[in-house]
Parts: sequence; structure tokens; C-alpha cells
Amino acid sequence: MKKQDYKKYFYVIAPELKQTEHIILQELHTEVPQLQEAAAHLITSGGKRLRPAFLLLAGKLFRENIDFMLPMAAAMEIAHVGTLVHDDVVDASDFRRGVETVRARYGEAVSLCAGDFLFARSLQLASDFGDDRILKRLTEGCCAICAGEIEQLQEAFSPAQTVRSYLRRIRKKTALLISLSCETGAMQCGANETEIRALRNFGNNLGMAFQISDDILDFTADEKVLGKPVGSDVRNGLMTFPLLYAMQDPETEKLVREQFAAGRLEEEAAEKIIEKVKYSGGIDAAVQLAERYATKAVQDLEIFPPSAAKESLRCIARQVARRNF
Amino acid sequence: MKKQDYKKYFYVIAPELKQTEHIILQELHTEVPQLQEAAAHLITSGGKRLRPAFLLLAGKLFRENIDFMLPMAAAMEIAHVGTLVHDDVVDASDFRRGVETVRARYGEAVSLCAGDFLFARSLQLASDFGDDRILKRLTEGCCAICAGEIEQLQEAFSPAQTVRSYLRRIRKKTALLISLSCETGAMQCGANETEIRALRNFGNNLGMAFQISDDILDFTADEKVLGKPVGSDVRNGLMTFPLLYAMQDPETEKLVREQFAAGRLEEEAAEKIIEKVKYSGGIDAAVQLAERYATKAVQDLEIFPPSAAKESLRCIARQVARRNF
Repeated sequence: MKKQDYKKYFYVIAPELKQTEHIILQELHTEVPQLQEAAAHLITSGGKRLRPAFLLLAGKLFRENIDFMLPMAAAMEIAHVGTLVHDDVVDASDFRRGVETVRARYGEAVSLCAGDFLFARSLQLASDFGDDRILKRLTEGCCAICAGEIEQLQEAFSPAQTVRSYLRRIRKKTALLISLSCETGAMQCGANETEIRALRNFGNNLGMAFQISDDILDFTADEKVLGKPVGSDVRNGLMTFPLLYAMQDPETEKLVREQFAAGRLEEEAAEKIIEKVKYSGGIDAAVQLAERYATKAVQDLEIFPPSAAKESLRCIARQVARRNF
Repeated sequence: MKKQDYKKYFYVIAPELKQTEHIILQELHTEVPQLQEAAAHLITSGGKRLRPAFLLLAGKLFRENIDFMLPMAAAMEIAHVGTLVHDDVVDASDFRRGVETVRARYGEAVSLCAGDFLFARSLQLASDFGDDRILKRLTEGCCAICAGEIEQLQEAFSPAQTVRSYLRRIRKKTALLISLSCETGAMQCGANETEIRALRNFGNNLGMAFQISDDILDFTADEKVLGKPVGSDVRNGLMTFPLLYAMQDPETEKLVREQFAAGRLEEEAAEKIIEKVKYSGGIDAAVQLAERYATKAVQDLEIFPPSAAKESLRCIARQVARRNF
């Protein structure tokens, strides 16, 4: 099992993505060196730049020259990184992408302020484009993402978690910002309502497939590849799809419920649960679920005429479904 | 020494301020009960609603009917409360306005998410008005406020604090959002550049006077009136104007530097420092500094013709300078 590399599908927008990278770093510039350092720490430590890529690919469906979209592409990545910085505080995580988190290196107070800064800078960049509708959608989306984070906190170690609550959670946590990226790309290019909706749905379905895949990796990946400990969700009291599937087995269910009732997982139990999930068929079932979302994403693209950008978006969606778990 | 009540000067906008209160509570509504509870906790526990009041009074300088400004007024208060919720996490504060902080009651993770939500909701409300220029100024301002917070973290317990760094800090921490409120009020009413600048400056000068007064209260007020422990700034390693003034005395300076070098204040030393400040003449000097800013604020209003709103703004500025310390 390995993490996927989507870069090969980004060739259509390679020069624009490179320029976006410059804008991101440039926009982190402030008079406060420690802020810049903390904000840049996570951004320069990797990341696939999926959100900027989707925004730019969505734009390429409509126009050849998409240079005017670069600051918005940067805004999407900066917002995303802002949510990661705050997530790492909330989850008290020490590692992400194989390097120390901002929290581990600079402490909680700096992480909190740096996350706020990234969020503010992202919306500042977005507001430069001067389209009220986009700002309205983005700020609405941010509210929903924040609400989702609190829901997740409440759900942690709750026995009431279901597939339904899991899907709602990952929709807000991951799919929403990807969906907003695709939708914003369409809006920036003056797309009509049908096209905007198609790209919003595409982003949502693709985002769902991505997060389900990520949640599979949380059980199956090598820690070195993952860049963080395996089974981190279940250790944080969150039931993802593979675990919910595995809990159809009464013995597994009992084990999980007992541990969750205690509000924390003993290491031995955590390892046992991870093993149970791996051999429950939950991984396969999750792959199938991801495939269904990916297929829907591909269908969402049908209204667009053939183009290199469309082909890239379709290949990315297909790739998610073809991961070798 | 007592905290001032500015409500008597708000009669010009009393009905609008009351409606703003409804909008604030309404905008906190989400599907997540705990989020709503946490977000509403601080908002309903008091607060003078100065930022909405200034925005509305600025509007009244130009128009009789300012109902269209109410959501923006709500946005200003929601943003302000968002910064307070995060500040209390950064400072690990347990009490504010005499009641438990969101952090003390709901924990750090919920406070972080609730602050993010308040911030996002505030900008969502602001974006509803549909003026790019306002969004641009507000998001720029938010970036500067966040940068200021990190600066403050770096300054804590630093011996390099000066009157200059103090003034820069309070400008970002307090004056900026008050200034943005006044400026936004002018922009919403289609004011010209001279008028916008005058109100921006008024808000900045008034905000400086306010914060200097608050910093005086931190030494002189009764804990019950203050709603939090006396001397909280110096305990957090921050030098405010009265302390910086008192440190002209070598003995006080030595005492502060020794304690700051240790990175925390012993209770006995904290009490000694607070006493030293009170009898140093630093309070009087700070009052004079606040008066200078208040006088500048009054001068900033000179370009506007006489009106009840102008008189209210002028009285508030005068009141700051007339506090009985």
C-alpha cells in the first residue's frame, strides 16, 4: 500500500502550479519573522497542492490563459494549511507529512496565531479578486468546516458514531474545501450555473473518495510513508469506514466500545483493533465506497467537452479508485 | 477607579444597537449545539458592544436610516469576540468579564474551533454586504491583528520591550479593529476618501486611548470590577505604559528584569511591582498619554458638521480622557 502521486496529471497546469508556489511563499511574508517561519514550516514541508491544482484545472476547462487565477489558487492552499495547523493543535499531533508539526516545534500559542494568520491571509488574497459571490461561498464554507471540527470533537470516543455521521464528518473536513476549489475555479471563469454545480459536485465526490482512501491508509500504510503513526483516527476516538465495517463483528464491536468508554485506547488494544480491521474485509468495502464516489466524480465531468484538463481531472478521479490497497 | 459606562452616549443608535444584538445571536445559530453554546457564552456574558456602536455612529454622521448597516455591525462584534476567545487560549486565562472563559468552560480544542467559527461567520456576514473594498480592508486588518498576536508572544518576558513596541502592540491588538469599525461605517455610507481617513484616524486614536486606559485599570482596578486578576499583563510578561514609566526607577527596573529573566513572576514580586507602579507616577503619565490620543480623536472629527452622532463620538473620546483613575 502506498500514497499516490498525482503530479503526473498536473502537466496541463505545471507552469501555473509552479508560479502559485511562488505566490504562496510570497504571501507568507510579514514583518514578524517567527510568524513567517511557523506559517512556512508546514507549507514547505510538502503537500500535494491538490486544492490549487483542482482550481486551476477547473479553470482550464474554460480558458487557456488562467494566470489571473493564481492568487486564488494560492489562497486555497494557504487556507488548507491553516486548517491543518489548527487541526494539529486540536489533535495534539506531533508529526505530519513526516516532519514535526507547527505545534510540536513552536508550541500551541504560536500555532493558534499562525493558523489564524493563514486563514486571514487566504481570505485577503481571495478578496483581491473582487467577486462577492466567491467570498460569500468561501466564508460560508469556512463556517461549515469549523462547525464540522466541533462536531468531530464531540464525536470523539462517542459510541453513537455511524457510517452516516462518518460521511457527514469527512464531507466537512475534506470534501468541502476541494469542492469549493473546483467551484471557485469555475466561478472565476464566468461559468454558468450548470457548470458551477457540476464542478462543485465533482469536487465533493472526489474529496469524499480521497478522504476514504486516506482513512484506509491510516490502517494499512507504512508509518514512514504515512509520516505519522498508523491508526491515529481510532486512537483519537474516531470511527472511520473500515472500523465501522469491522464492528459488524460483535467481538470487535465489544472491544472498541469498551476502549471508547474509557475515553482512551490502551496501546495493546489499539494494535489489536487495527489488526481486526485489516482482516475484517473493511478495507475492501472502503475501497469500493471510494470507487463509487470516484465514479460519480467522473460522471459529473460529462457535461464538459473533451480537453486535456478534463482528461487530467478524470484520470485523478480514476486513480483514487485504482489505488493498490 | 471604576470602569466607564459609555451606554449613555449610545442613545443616538439605541434601537439599531438593540437590533444588532438580535442579529449577533441569530448568526451564532448552527446545527452544532455545543458550538452555539461556546460561541454564545462569551457574547452573552457582557461586553460594551463598542465596535458595533462606533460603526453605527460613524454611519449616522452620513445618514439617518442606517438599518442596512446592522449585519456589518454584528460582524464587528463577532470578530472581536473571536479574537477574545483565541486570546484566552493563548494567555491560558480562566476569567474574563467576571465569568469563566470559553477555554475554562469548554477546553482549548473547542475554544480554538469556536474562535475560528466566529471569525469565519464574521467575514461571511461582512461579505453579504458585497463591497470588495471593505472585505479587502477587513481581511488585511485581520492579518495585521494575527501578526500582532505573534509579536506579543515573542515580546512576553523579553527585556527589550519599549514604549515604542508597546504602542505598536496595542495599535494592532485594540486600535486596529476599532479603527476598521469606524472606517467601514464610513465606507458603507459612500463617504469620500477624506471622510474615510478621518474616521479611520479617529478610531485608531480612540482605540489607543482605550487600551492605555485598560492597561491603567490592570494596575488600579478592583478585581471584582475588572472581572479578572489585577496585574495580569505584567504576570504574562508584558510591559505596559505604567510599568515602562515606573522602570525609570533603577530599583524597579532591576526587580522587573530579574523576574522576567526567570520567565515567570513570583507572586510576592508581582505584588511588589504592582505597588511600585502605583506610586511611580506611571499612572498619571499614562492618563496624560491617553488624553493626548483622545484629543487627537476629537480633532479628527472636526471635518464633520455638527450632529447628534458627532456629539456622541466626541463625548466618548472626552470621557476616556476624563476617567477618574
